[in-house]
Amino acid sequence: MPNLIIEQERYFIKMSALKFDIQYEDPNSQARIGRLETPHGVVETPTFIPVGTQATVKTMKPSDINALDVSMIICNTYHLHLRPGADLVAEMGGLQKFMGWNGVIMTDSGGFQVFSLGASMEHGVGKVASIFPGDEGKKLDRHTPKGQSRVKLTEEGAHFRSHIDGSKHLFTPENTIDIQHKLGSDIILVLDECTSPFHDYDYTSNSLELTHRWAKRALDHFQSLNIKNQALYGIIQGGAHEDLREKSATFIGDMDFHGIGIGGTLGESKSDIYRVLDWITPFLPREKPRHLLGIGEIDNIFDIVERGVDTFDCVTPTRYGRYGNALLKGENKYRLDITSAKCKKDPNPINLECECATCQTHSRAYLNHLFHAKEPLAGHLVTIHNLHTLMNLMKDVRQAIVEGTLSELKSQWLVD
Amino acid sequence: MPNLIIEQERYFIKMSALKFDIQYEDPNSQARIGRLETPHGVVETPTFIPVGTQATVKTMKPSDINALDVSMIICNTYHLHLRPGADLVAEMGGLQKFMGWNGVIMTDSGGFQVFSLGASMEHGVGKVASIFPGDEGKKLDRHTPKGQSRVKLTEEGAHFRSHIDGSKHLFTPENTIDIQHKLGSDIILVLDECTSPFHDYDYTSNSLELTHRWAKRALDHFQSLNIKNQALYGIIQGGAHEDLREKSATFIGDMDFHGIGIGGTLGESKSDIYRVLDWITPFLPREKPRHLLGIGEIDNIFDIVERGVDTFDCVTPTRYGRYGNALLKGENKYRLDITSAKCKKDPNPINLECECATCQTHSRAYLNHLFHAKEPLAGHLVTIHNLHTLMNLMKDVRQAIVEGTLSELKSQWLVD
Repeated sequence: MPNLIIEQERYFIKMSALKFDIQYEDPNSQARIGRLETPHGVVETPTFIPVGTQATVKTMKPSDINALDVSMIICNTYHLHLRPGADLVAEMGGLQKFMGWNGVIMTDSGGFQVFSLGASMEHGVGKVASIFPGDEGKKLDRHTPKGQSRVKLTEEGAHFRSHIDGSKHLFTPENTIDIQHKLGSDIILVLDECTSPFHDYDYTSNSLELTHRWAKRALDHFQSLNIKNQALYGIIQGGAHEDLREKSATFIGDMDFHGIGIGGTLGESKSDIYRVLDWITPFLPREKPRHLLGIGEIDNIFDIVERGVDTFDCVTPTRYGRYGNALLKGENKYRLDITSAKCKKDPNPINLECECATCQTHSRAYLNHLFHAKEPLAGHLVTIHNLHTLMNLMKDVRQAIVEGTLSELKSQWLVD
Repeated sequence: MPNLIIEQERYFIKMSALKFDIQYEDPNSQARIGRLETPHGVVETPTFIPVGTQATVKTMKPSDINALDVSMIICNTYHLHLRPGADLVAEMGGLQKFMGWNGVIMTDSGGFQVFSLGASMEHGVGKVASIFPGDEGKKLDRHTPKGQSRVKLTEEGAHFRSHIDGSKHLFTPENTIDIQHKLGSDIILVLDECTSPFHDYDYTSNSLELTHRWAKRALDHFQSLNIKNQALYGIIQGGAHEDLREKSATFIGDMDFHGIGIGGTLGESKSDIYRVLDWITPFLPREKPRHLLGIGEIDNIFDIVERGVDTFDCVTPTRYGRYGNALLKGENKYRLDITSAKCKKDPNPINLECECATCQTHSRAYLNHLFHAKEPLAGHLVTIHNLHTLMNLMKDVRQAIVEGTLSELKSQWLVD
């Protein structure tokens, strides 16, 4: 971007594991262009982070990921702790060596899984499926018979039973640091309780205090271990309550974390997500990278980037891909159902303008055939297209920010 | 192979769609080094032909296939006729354009599927699962309740019901040529009845007469269409009866086919396959390429190549791959069960000496994890290894033939 970087500032985080440079700030919004340096490479921000829950971005081998513009993925501590176990991953040299991909890896501490497993049910809230965009259409209580929680929260941590074999486990602020240290991811997250908008004010307020006490314990433990090759992000909670969100942003923002995670099932609608971001952004330290957890539908991207989000992750591009929903501008919810009758005889690729390996090689008719024939290749090919589409959109977003054309790009995509 | 090609002879098949050069013949066996030229490229023989039943080698996208030494695959007329239909494939420009892979494609006429669907049951034979190495472990009657055949053979052809929706279809010697002409494969096969060793002599003899009458009708029809861009192979049947096999080899060998298919479920044991090959080879025209249908376990390869087989196909490398059986010398039946407990903590690749993308990148422990976590990537990674292993073995076999070391290579592999 020659001559386009008007403002060049450089911030050094205290520890060496992560350096975040804000290279440009949009004068018309809070969007910023950043450069996140980690032990496993550089991430240009703002960007989308594909999800690799079980140490694999579903259907994608390392060379498939490298063929895209993906520099960072997020794996899941809860799942990897249960299977294959952090000790095994450590024996194999850490997540990058274990999965054979030498890029940047973030791990989620398991707070959302604690929530998914039924903590919300314990407190009398339920039917939370489909309000969380990162998990749209997925029943959060799928592993738990109604009313039978697998999770108990105490001051010490989260006691839970494995969804795989029912075995008992305990996550504490300290041991989730230990587990993530064994996993060897570049960016690790503190344990938090992820509340839902259905929780009442008192529950959410008490939960936030617990999350903050846990954050302090996690940071203390992290610092006592003198970890130099991993960066630690705190997580902001506070539900749908402005004062709690402000309080959390101030509390977490003031601590010596390398970066800030923004958590919680952020509401029932897009506007709820944006409202939460509007509440907290003024209280966040400008120089630290901000990761929004579990959000990343195409119609969210512009509004969250305009509110200063640097990175965000979401399962939908990969999940949609496996079920035959191809991301495409102009379609309802940006999804072309490749399994539909209208694609059966269509010789065109998903998107004529797309440069992904799938669109360069295959017709809608072929993809339609693969899905109807239940061929394993089907989901892989649409996953490639979906990830390419999102990564390419983020490249366009970054360029639009520096060129001052973000609102034009937004209006091209968000046609209501 | 400089200075190694002692004998250089060139045979031209009458029509232009296929040229087969025998470049070298092993003085110690009937093995030969060949070069099969087709409209979509050259195939070095002897070689293994991966199976792409539904216009996809399961889990493998075109670039994955091209990363291996695969120049030819075999697709299935029965499956493609039912779904997506030959007309659609023709509209899309033929199989190569439809699947986005520009290599050599052979199609099987559907004779084996007719057999699978229950023709054998109609004639009082059953329990044929597991005797056919190409379909080992698969119940042939899986789509058909016992005693309820979906197939009726008449002089006209094979009447059958779809395993997908029960719809009625008829395959004739003529329309299977038409269908394969629409599919646009480089090498097409005549319709045959595939008998089993359980059929009695009279049934097998009558069936062979029908197969021969069908072969003549197929060739007449093929010639009347004046097809120039496809080659037609006849198929030898005759069950486990020496005189019938000789008769069939002579009959099919004398006709104006571009090549010879060797069909039938060739017995219960490896030695049955070799006996059939020993019976027929003396009666086969030397200059025509020979394809052995549905055989290709590692412990078959040397013996069939020594008996003059040029190409052969088998589903096992890809099927084993999807179920976690990795081809490896020294293991029981050449299969390492990557899902077994002994692989759980093994940091080594499947095969330390293997140069496939999977062995260059991933440990047994990671593959074990992917299978236990039911990740779709698991089967793909082992499929890559299995196909690489077979293609690489065939490269070694070709080199050993020209170097006169085939028996040494065989004894390295076949340690009983």
